[in-house]
Parts: sequence; structure tokens; C-alpha cells
Amino acid sequence: MNAQIISIGTELAIGQTVDTNSAWLAQRLAEIGIHCTRHTTIADELAPIVAAIKQASIEADLLLISGGLGPTIDDLTRQALADAMGKPLVFHQASMEQIEAYFRARNRSMHPDNRVQAMIPQGAAPIENTNGTAPGMSALLNKAHIFVMPGVPREMQMMFVGDVLPKLPRGDGGVILQHSIRTFGMPEAEAGQKIAGLMARGRNPTVGTSAADLIITIRINAHASTREEAQRLIDADAVQIRQLLGRAVFGEGDMTISDAVGRLLIDQQLTISTAESCTGGLIAKRLTDVSGSSAYFTQAFVTYANESKMRLLEIPDALFRSHGAVSAEVAHAMAANGRRISGTDYSLSATGIAGPTGGTADKPVGLVYIGIAGPRGVEVKEFRFGELLGRDEIRDRAAKAALNLLRLSIKPS
Amino acid sequence: MNAQIISIGTELAIGQTVDTNSAWLAQRLAEIGIHCTRHTTIADELAPIVAAIKQASIEADLLLISGGLGPTIDDLTRQALADAMGKPLVFHQASMEQIEAYFRARNRSMHPDNRVQAMIPQGAAPIENTNGTAPGMSALLNKAHIFVMPGVPREMQMMFVGDVLPKLPRGDGGVILQHSIRTFGMPEAEAGQKIAGLMARGRNPTVGTSAADLIITIRINAHASTREEAQRLIDADAVQIRQLLGRAVFGEGDMTISDAVGRLLIDQQLTISTAESCTGGLIAKRLTDVSGSSAYFTQAFVTYANESKMRLLEIPDALFRSHGAVSAEVAHAMAANGRRISGTDYSLSATGIAGPTGGTADKPVGLVYIGIAGPRGVEVKEFRFGELLGRDEIRDRAAKAALNLLRLSIKPS
Repeated sequence: MNAQIISIGTELAIGQTVDTNSAWLAQRLAEIGIHCTRHTTIADELAPIVAAIKQASIEADLLLISGGLGPTIDDLTRQALADAMGKPLVFHQASMEQIEAYFRARNRSMHPDNRVQAMIPQGAAPIENTNGTAPGMSALLNKAHIFVMPGVPREMQMMFVGDVLPKLPRGDGGVILQHSIRTFGMPEAEAGQKIAGLMARGRNPTVGTSAADLIITIRINAHASTREEAQRLIDADAVQIRQLLGRAVFGEGDMTISDAVGRLLIDQQLTISTAESCTGGLIAKRLTDVSGSSAYFTQAFVTYANESKMRLLEIPDALFRSHGAVSAEVAHAMAANGRRISGTDYSLSATGIAGPTGGTADKPVGLVYIGIAGPRGVEVKEFRFGELLGRDEIRDRAAKAALNLLRLSIKPS
Repeated sequence: MNAQIISIGTELAIGQTVDTNSAWLAQRLAEIGIHCTRHTTIADELAPIVAAIKQASIEADLLLISGGLGPTIDDLTRQALADAMGKPLVFHQASMEQIEAYFRARNRSMHPDNRVQAMIPQGAAPIENTNGTAPGMSALLNKAHIFVMPGVPREMQMMFVGDVLPKLPRGDGGVILQHSIRTFGMPEAEAGQKIAGLMARGRNPTVGTSAADLIITIRINAHASTREEAQRLIDADAVQIRQLLGRAVFGEGDMTISDAVGRLLIDQQLTISTAESCTGGLIAKRLTDVSGSSAYFTQAFVTYANESKMRLLEIPDALFRSHGAVSAEVAHAMAANGRRISGTDYSLSATGIAGPTGGTADKPVGLVYIGIAGPRGVEVKEFRFGELLGRDEIRDRAAKAALNLLRLSIKPS
């Protein structure tokens, strides 16, 4: 069983509003084993809406439509469904009474324009809207079961959960379960090749990769007749993926690198502090994103000015003069001194050029030194993130690189 | 001239990721008078992608495609475009060299799988990707100019602005310009009432409000036959809105509170430091989000442990014992001592319970004290953000409240 979703509205088509209804509906469908293959967003124009409904009704078993049910002249979904079905619009008295009751209950008077909302195509059935004035509709056309819902996300969601979902078949008597495995530090192409066997087309589960903010997520989608069977399929693939990708894997589901690091620190009763320049407190912020972080995080020095680095972290002036503030030597001293002064097991440092100004040929924007001081000494890594990334992303990547360095420095228990 | 947009990716079709690329692209098109009539989102399956490209190339003058250009086997856009065009994929040496250069510049070795990214359909032209490994493509098919861009929003946006936009004709259906005015601290309903006259239906420009992360944005959309005329309409409304909303307005466009505060500090040559507990460095991070922040930001103490507050900020132990670490008294001392020790004009402090654990009946999760020390003394404000918000949002709101307190403390010059 496969589904398509159509969202109707000029505000969506011209990009004034981001369509979140389609993703929400697709997720709900996946949860009951119905695979959504296509979303279409169309402006408020009759002919293209009619054409889209007709085409989808030939391709899909289930068609969910949202939007275009309001009372104004640019709300065309009722007429479009009627045209696609080749039927006239007819007045539906019970719907009219529900709309009138909606206004009465709110002590508001109904505008005559709302009457049009009680019209539905002959042969379609209305769906009451308990949360707004626009009734929904259900109909059969070609091979598709069609459900039409309002575009306002809250009204759409209430109607879907209350009236549409109970009427949907469970997909081929099956369910689709999803699981994500999250990695950092291994290029997507390399990860893809290591798990290529699992990514073969037509296989179940389907395994795919996606990249966002340097994190490569491996998605497993298992299709099975029962939840338990789907879970078994996922578990089997997850074991293999973890093995193939090794320490690049930092977590599962929606776990962040901060979560992963926090768990390691808590498990091994280790403490951490930071000494930050270009990241401006971002590494400390990430370390304290996690509830319970007071168990391991004690303090951070954000020393943006050189004078602050000298005063708070006791970096000798000579180091700036011989190597510059953005140097492996200063990152080394910041981490080592930060650790000594804070009295923590580990200390992370960062010094670099976040840009967009301040770069030179020698030290371009995007150059960042990350230091880590720990029980086994001090290590400094140089990163060249490239100046085109922009300030936010350079800082984000520097913070992620720092946390990942910490993660890899701590032996798994 | 009309346009369509196709987004490719199973993660989009099944709702795991919300497609934001289509709305972003449609907005950019609207700004140059090109009307976007349809977006289509399709899973990573070859035949439906080929069919969608073919159909759109018959219906639209301009077709923008994003996604499916990665190096793994589920990235099918190159093949789909070739199939739609009825041409083979050919290897493009210059693209290969650019991909190799991308890796070299980052001191990383290229995986052989990335080679496939240098393949393009015969007759198409590659578009260099300065921000990632996936080159884009442009081609002609039926009546459509087709541009294919990567799915990663940042890469797509850079490529669109740098390489696609300059090649697009300006549309003839008039211009829609958008402008945003951003406010903080005034409830949306109150802002809405103050500018109700401008929000009347059917008016041009249309004026609307939207709320996200405590920031209320007033959006102005003007439709006119020329850019200049649309700009004039926007300017007239903007003047009125600024007047009606007063000091709640902190900026325009996509300006952040950090930007607004940074501008004030630079204009008046003031310096700032922070002394943070529950925000864990987030206020410092926000202050240094702005390029050039070294002019005003010198340092931050992130003192998460009480012992750190005592040692680094000289908070007397007695204060913790009589009032607790989360108290107006401690916030006061942190701001005052932070300012004295840092030697800055202003210092912001934050102490609170970000949760989800650690709350009591007396001091619930979401209770945060923000202190500000400046030339005119020390002020502390108590915030109760409510525990339902969750840790991330409580910290976000605390940081925004701190920056806004600073903004309002500095007299506009």
C-alpha cells in the first residue's frame, strides 16, 4: 500500500509558509506501515489542483489532501475534488448545522461566506471539524481512498487522528519501523562503502545515509508484518552497522555528541573544564546541554581577549609574540593550564579564526586549533574548516570536533 | 514565466526531515517575479524521479531540483536526469578535479565513491560546488531550464545565490518583496492589536505576525509592478510599525538580539563580560556570534560548580548557605564581581534551574535569576519560564532575556 500527500495553498507554493503538514502526515503513515512516495504542493489554481488529484488517484492507494477548504474565493479544494470526480457540488445540511453550531459556541456570528464550506462533491462524505469551520471530506476515485483535511496544522492533526487514522487500513498488514545510528568523523562516502552490502536496492530493511551538520546518520527502515519482526530486522542490521563503522558511531536515535560524551564522563566519573577563545563558550554550552552535567562539568574560561588569556589562563605573553594567539602552542598551553587551574581530569581548548574577518594568507578564516589535556598528556589538532563555511558553522564544527576529540580520548569502559 | 521545484530524498518523503529547501527557493523566485506553482517531493526511487522531471519539464519554464547528488547508491538524481533527457551519463574531468581539490584543501583524502559525483548527463553542464563535494547541473529539457543543486540547505543556498540566480531571467508578473521587523518582550496578541489597522485583509502590503522562540516577527509583503514601488510600500508600513511597537523592536530582516546588542556596544564603545551558571556559556556564545565581537567581549566565567563560583567569582560561601546558589543574591554578586574582576563596563550573570531534574516546590525547574551590573549599578530580574518548556528552551530564553536586559540597559545613542 502506498500513499501520496497533496498540500494546497499559494502561501506554500510561493514559499511564504513552510509546509510541515506533509512531513507530519508521512510520519504518521510510516508508523502504521503505509509508505509515502510523493508530496505535491500546489498553488490555489483550479486546473492544476484537479490534474494533481486525478494523477495521484491513479498512482496511489491512499491520497491525503490538506488545505484550500476555507470560506474565501481562493479556497478551491472542494471544487477541484468535484471536478476530478466529474460530479457536481451539493449542499450538505448537517455540515451547515455543525458550522453554525461552531460559531454559536464561540458567541460569534457566522459570515454568509461560510455557507460554501457546507458544499461537498456528490458521492463524497463530509468529515466533521470539531476545531474549526472547514469540514473535511472523504471520497473514492480511481484506485485511491481520498481524505481531504483543513490546512491549519492543529485542525488537520486533530481531524487526522480523530477521523482519518481510524479508517485507514494497516499497510499490507505490516509496519515500518525506523532506527538511526549516528556517526561523526567518517566521510559519508567511506561510511557508504563500508555498509554498501546493507544498502543494496530492494533489500529489507532499507538502509540509507544522510548528512547534516557533519553528522552522518545511517537510517534503517524495516518493513514487516509485526512490530516485533520489524524490530528484529532493525536490530540485526544495527549490530552489523556498529561493527562496520566502529568508533565513528557515537550514538543511536536522536542522541547528540554531547549526550555521548556526557554518558562516558558519568560512567567513568571523570570531570571536564574548557578554555575557549574562538568558540566563545560554545563547547561549555554543549557540555552542559545534558541534564546532570554538573556531575562532570565544573567551569569554563572564555578568554576572548589575549589579556584575558594571560590573566586567567596564565599564558605567557612571549607565546603570543612568537606564535600568535591562533597557534598550536597557545592551544596547548590553554588546555594544559586550563586543566591545572580547574583541577579537572580533562580540559578542552579552542583558538582559531571564526571570521568572516581576521584571516591572513598564513592563518585563514576557518583555521582552528583544538587542544585536549588529560591524564595521558596534551594533544593539539589543527582543523581547516574553510572560510566559505561562515562563522556559525566554523564555530559549530570546532565545538563538535572538540567534543569528538574528548569522546575518542576516553577509552570506552 | 512559471517555475516548479522538485526535492528528492526518502527522508523527506517519509517525513523524517521537513523540506525547507522548496520554500526557501520559492521565496527567492518570488523576489525576482517568478511565480512558483508546484513543489514535488519524491523518495529515492529512479522511475518516479524520472517521471516527475519529465512532467515538470513540460509544464514549467524553470525547474529547480535539490537533493540526491551524494556519493552513495541511493543518490539517483544524476541518473534520473540522464534518463529523463534520454542521454548517457558522462565523466566530467574538470568536476573531478574540483572534487579532489575540495578534499585536498581540507587535508582529507577522497574516497573513490566520490568519483560518481563527477558524472553528468551528456548535454548538461556542471555547476561547481564551492561548499561541498556534489557539483550541481544545468540542462535544457522540453520547455524547461533545469538546475540541479545539492540537498544540504547551506550548499544549495550558496549554489543558488552564486550560480543559479545570476542566470535566471526576471519574471514579468510583478514583484513580491518581503520585509520583517523583529520584536522581543511584547506578547503577540498585544503587538497584533497595536498594528491591527495594517493587518486588514485585502490590503497591500499584507502584514502578519508570527512567533518563534519568543521573538515576534512582523512580516510585510508588498506586491507591485516594480521593485522600487514594492520597496516604497514596505518602507511606509515599516515606519508605522516601528513607531507603534516602540522599544520592543530590536531589529529588521534576520537580525538577532545578539546583532542588536553588538551594534549598540560597538557604537558606544562599551565592553561586556559574563558570569554564568545554568546557561553554561550560552550568553557568551550569543555575544560572540557576531563578527567583530572582540571589540566588546573580553571574557566569561562559566562557573557551574559552587566551588568554581567561590574561587573564580569570589562569591562568599555564606551566600550559598543563606540563600542557595539559585537566588537573586547570588545572581547579584556574580554580576557585580564578574564586572569588577573582568574590568568591563557591563557584566551579565545567570543562575537558575534548567532541569529537568533539580527543582523543588520553592525553586521549581525554570526559575532563573538574571543579573546585570553596569555603570549605574546592579539589577537582578527573576524569571519563571515553567518546567514544561524543557532544558534547551529554558536556557535559550534565559540567554535571550539576559541579552534583552543588556539591550534595554544601554540607552540608544
